Amino acid sequence: MLEPVSLDLSIPAVRIIDQRRLPESLEYRDLRNAADVADAIRTLAVRGAPAIGIAAAYCLALEACRLAALEPPRLLEALEAAAGTLAASRPTAVNLFNALAQMLAAARREHASGAALAAALEAEARRIHAADLEASRQMGRFGALLVADGAACLTHCNAGGLATGGLGTALAVFYAAKAAGKKIHVYVDETRPLLQGARLTAFELLENGVPCTLICDGAAGFLMQRRGVHAVFTGADRIARNGDAANKIGTFSLAVLAHHHGIPFYIVAPLSTFDAGAPDGSAIPVEERAADEVRGFAGRRSAPRDVPAWNPAFDVTPAGLISGIVTERGVLRPPYESAIAAALEGTERERR
Amino acid sequence: MLEPVSLDLSIPAVRIIDQRRLPESLEYRDLRNAADVADAIRTLAVRGAPAIGIAAAYCLALEACRLAALEPPRLLEALEAAAGTLAASRPTAVNLFNALAQMLAAARREHASGAALAAALEAEARRIHAADLEASRQMGRFGALLVADGAACLTHCNAGGLATGGLGTALAVFYAAKAAGKKIHVYVDETRPLLQGARLTAFELLENGVPCTLICDGAAGFLMQRRGVHAVFTGADRIARNGDAANKIGTFSLAVLAHHHGIPFYIVAPLSTFDAGAPDGSAIPVEERAADEVRGFAGRRSAPRDVPAWNPAFDVTPAGLISGIVTERGVLRPPYESAIAAALEGTERERR
Repeated sequence: MLEPVSLDLSIPAVRIIDQRRLPESLEYRDLRNAADVADAIRTLAVRGAPAIGIAAAYCLALEACRLAALEPPRLLEALEAAAGTLAASRPTAVNLFNALAQMLAAARREHASGAALAAALEAEARRIHAADLEASRQMGRFGALLVADGAACLTHCNAGGLATGGLGTALAVFYAAKAAGKKIHVYVDETRPLLQGARLTAFELLENGVPCTLICDGAAGFLMQRRGVHAVFTGADRIARNGDAANKIGTFSLAVLAHHHGIPFYIVAPLSTFDAGAPDGSAIPVEERAADEVRGFAGRRSAPRDVPAWNPAFDVTPAGLISGIVTERGVLRPPYESAIAAALEGTERERR
Repeated sequence: MLEPVSLDLSIPAVRIIDQRRLPESLEYRDLRNAADVADAIRTLAVRGAPAIGIAAAYCLALEACRLAALEPPRLLEALEAAAGTLAASRPTAVNLFNALAQMLAAARREHASGAALAAALEAEARRIHAADLEASRQMGRFGALLVADGAACLTHCNAGGLATGGLGTALAVFYAAKAAGKKIHVYVDETRPLLQGARLTAFELLENGVPCTLICDGAAGFLMQRRGVHAVFTGADRIARNGDAANKIGTFSLAVLAHHHGIPFYIVAPLSTFDAGAPDGSAIPVEERAADEVRGFAGRRSAPRDVPAWNPAFDVTPAGLISGIVTERGVLRPPYESAIAAALEGTERERR
């Protein structure tokens, strides 16, 4: 299994796979400080909501290690500044902010010495990573129960191992279904503009021996109408208290198409993707990226240089279109408000 | 206005704009025989249902001119063979088959000499072209009445001058609305895999001074949800007797999204795009093109070389999702069966 983010304190560095180069080449990069990690997140060298959270956590551990000679109050100030740099990288995936908050809380609990604080942050970051890996396993286990033997599934963007601590969210479901002996077929939206479906999901599914077929995003409706799809599974970047879910642009269209065809539409996301501070989708900030991403790909221009383009990186699917949200604590079903509150409360209780 | 197809009997050749090279460069190509024209259609050097029909008509006129020394019965045989070559180029756009049938009928009416037959076919082909141009004007006029001042519209693929005899189908509506003094804004789906929206529609709208914004196909749903769209207009490649309409892959998804948001969805197509022989959409053959179109982007590979891909070039929108069909005889409304029959009958009567 590919490890999109890891921490090597002997260097010291946060090591990432540069996902912009996949599938052509598998390149690792060592990031030495918060500015580098923020830049890697901004440019999508590391991407996927859980992976971004893990990268941010490892980055604060790295910074604490670098600055371990400082007294705890000074070190905490430096970490807060680093967290600010990381928080300004991308606005939508809440895992980033949740991980930063969790790391800063751990930092504030440790007063003995800079070295002790650094050790505590390394432990906390590794816990966040391990928890995500375990959450992937549980999501796969719960989600696989929703996949019938022989099912044709559809997914969007990359919600796989590259997007998380190791197994994925939506793709963890397919891996678990396959491991359980079910024959499945996964259709993969290529996911313009940055083609994470074509580049990353197709790559991952082939690597893991899951039968798959790539389609253009615009073909999803006709796929449902003509070939039939049994279920749609996608990840999420932020889920509001009422179940509205932000995910890669194009997800909302899939949810509407699934609804039209009577096909269940599932979000797969760990509880670190939930934003208890957002009452509904209107409170989720949606990143808009550069127009040039729409006007071309990988340096090839496909449109007139001067045509305006609108490039929201995410959209928001209303809870009413979501059949279930697969989490590490089971499949949440409508009404989501109470189901989400109970799941978050359970996690909070375990942490205390 | 660009002329995507013309006939120059002094060369003699069917002259086309090579649309694969737009918007980078505007290149004309002279096609000397049916095999060349069929190849240009197959490879999308010339594309758009009406433009394909005109190219096929001109091609038979060209062949008749080249072979005018033959006796009419031998010439007719040669023309039937050429028609067979053209008919095998692409299966979905019915304008091709309608134009070929109309040309062969004209050929069968002329017995005096090969030269007379060639002259009759040139006249018939120029009539088909002129009729399409006039149909564009009328579709623009009728369609513009559906566009309110200040409206935001959405279109897919290229249904513009490059797709027709000169003014377009869906884009003719926007040109006419603008000419009538209405302020409009047109959102353009880039239209993967071959990006006719990004390459051709954006180019045409900019050339004609129509304010426009390019989006990825997957952003159409979020556009409707967040920015608002007043109406969707697309062309068609074949419309069945009951109003089911085949058009570029992605059109059906737009129709579902428009329906979900209560946005009117219009097809704009001349009566040459109707197939009286097809009772409904299930009778329309849908071309599937090479997987490499999906695995790459403008010549760059964007997916693993060996991932399977599904690449239907068209989809079929059920009549129930179509708010109206704008033709040169007015806007047809449900129930389409009788409205279409009446419109086709009117055209047939005028031709007699």
